Amino acid sequence: MCQLLGMNCNVPTDICFSFTGFCARGGQTDDHQDGWGIAFFEGAGCRLYIDEKSSVTSPVAELVKQYPIHSKHVIAHIRKATQGQIALENCHPFRRELWGRYWVFAHNGDLKDFDGPIEGLYKSVGNTDSERAFCIILETLRAAFPEGMPTTEQLYKALQAITAQIAAHGVFNYLLSDGVHLFAHCSTSLHFIVRQAPFAEAHLVDEDVTVNFQGLTTLQDRVAVIATLPLTDNEVWKAIAPNQLILFQDGQPSLL
Amino acid sequence: MCQLLGMNCNVPTDICFSFTGFCARGGQTDDHQDGWGIAFFEGAGCRLYIDEKSSVTSPVAELVKQYPIHSKHVIAHIRKATQGQIALENCHPFRRELWGRYWVFAHNGDLKDFDGPIEGLYKSVGNTDSERAFCIILETLRAAFPEGMPTTEQLYKALQAITAQIAAHGVFNYLLSDGVHLFAHCSTSLHFIVRQAPFAEAHLVDEDVTVNFQGLTTLQDRVAVIATLPLTDNEVWKAIAPNQLILFQDGQPSLL
Repeated sequence: MCQLLGMNCNVPTDICFSFTGFCARGGQTDDHQDGWGIAFFEGAGCRLYIDEKSSVTSPVAELVKQYPIHSKHVIAHIRKATQGQIALENCHPFRRELWGRYWVFAHNGDLKDFDGPIEGLYKSVGNTDSERAFCIILETLRAAFPEGMPTTEQLYKALQAITAQIAAHGVFNYLLSDGVHLFAHCSTSLHFIVRQAPFAEAHLVDEDVTVNFQGLTTLQDRVAVIATLPLTDNEVWKAIAPNQLILFQDGQPSLL
Repeated sequence: MCQLLGMNCNVPTDICFSFTGFCARGGQTDDHQDGWGIAFFEGAGCRLYIDEKSSVTSPVAELVKQYPIHSKHVIAHIRKATQGQIALENCHPFRRELWGRYWVFAHNGDLKDFDGPIEGLYKSVGNTDSERAFCIILETLRAAFPEGMPTTEQLYKALQAITAQIAAHGVFNYLLSDGVHLFAHCSTSLHFIVRQAPFAEAHLVDEDVTVNFQGLTTLQDRVAVIATLPLTDNEVWKAIAPNQLILFQDGQPSLL
């Protein structure tokens, strides 16, 4: 299995604090050491860092911890290989283009009886169930809305339908973003917290690091952090219910 | 305009030396400071680092200079914006998937009367002539070979034809790779060198750095480096002729 980390905010925010704790799970406090990756949207643009090394030994992960990249939509992943060998092409997040936007996807889970060629335009480069699921999602959305980006409500409904079909194959926790929406689907384990004023201190589970968000934020800021398991031990994280698809926009969760 | 750097080898090689000289042109020895990027293939996988900062100030460029990533196919770019604002989505190289492989593209030049919507599956995320040209190339290849990857000769011919059409709009120096082939098209300025045994010393134009490749290589190694302008001052670089499309494989140039 793997672990997921996502962030969605109403102002570009850096993820250094959360990523530091998350990163430790890639070989230090947990054994998800078969690669890692992180994607940051900046407007329409998207930075994507992946590495087949563990996140605790990767020089690129060290850079991401030190270099505050500000973004409203972030998706990160640490991998413990179930399907597909340890290789760069099998590191999440995966990225493709649809309707003139980049889409980024990371998965935690294991999908059974879920292989074979994909009929359509998006083909897998690696050989994970995860990338295949992503290609099928994009294929389905493209076919459903050939004219381009639908309304958020239409998008949510279409995504919910294809997600249910894929989730019938096994565990399908995922994060998906196009830099405008961030979707989080829970199959077995996914938690989130929304931080907003009054901001307080947070302390990581995986490293003895504390941050006081009050000094780093304004009254208007709202930041949602989503993770397979809570990253802090002094805040209340909400578990997403199984089979729930949550849309995050401006740090605000909704079910539509 | 911009500058291009490519590398193609028969064994995975790091590009730290060439990149150090190239990087200096992004704000130190030259003024291509409107962003930069580099893509490394590792098997089917592909690392892509882009930044809208100049290559001389980017912490990510610093990492790439220090961290020897070994690859047989590398494409890098430093940008001086002509079309499209300074933004992450306009940084080269661009990457898309075709036939289950990643394709990476970087362009130096300026294409006139070359905008409007693209009929087809690949849409631009940013607003450069370069990304549009890349989308059209992939669209054309996909349409020409709907069954999947053609032979290298068929691919070369199809690419040559669409390149000539696009080049009619202006300056179209580019590098394109799918991790198996590396194509270099010269419109006005593109040079290359093939390093093989007996290896010797090389000294950068842009930084006072010398490397002796003899200590770093084996007798079998062959490395082609392609650049807008020569990167070293004590070696003989070959200019690619205008309108020539060269295919590099295993460090060996050919015209097919």
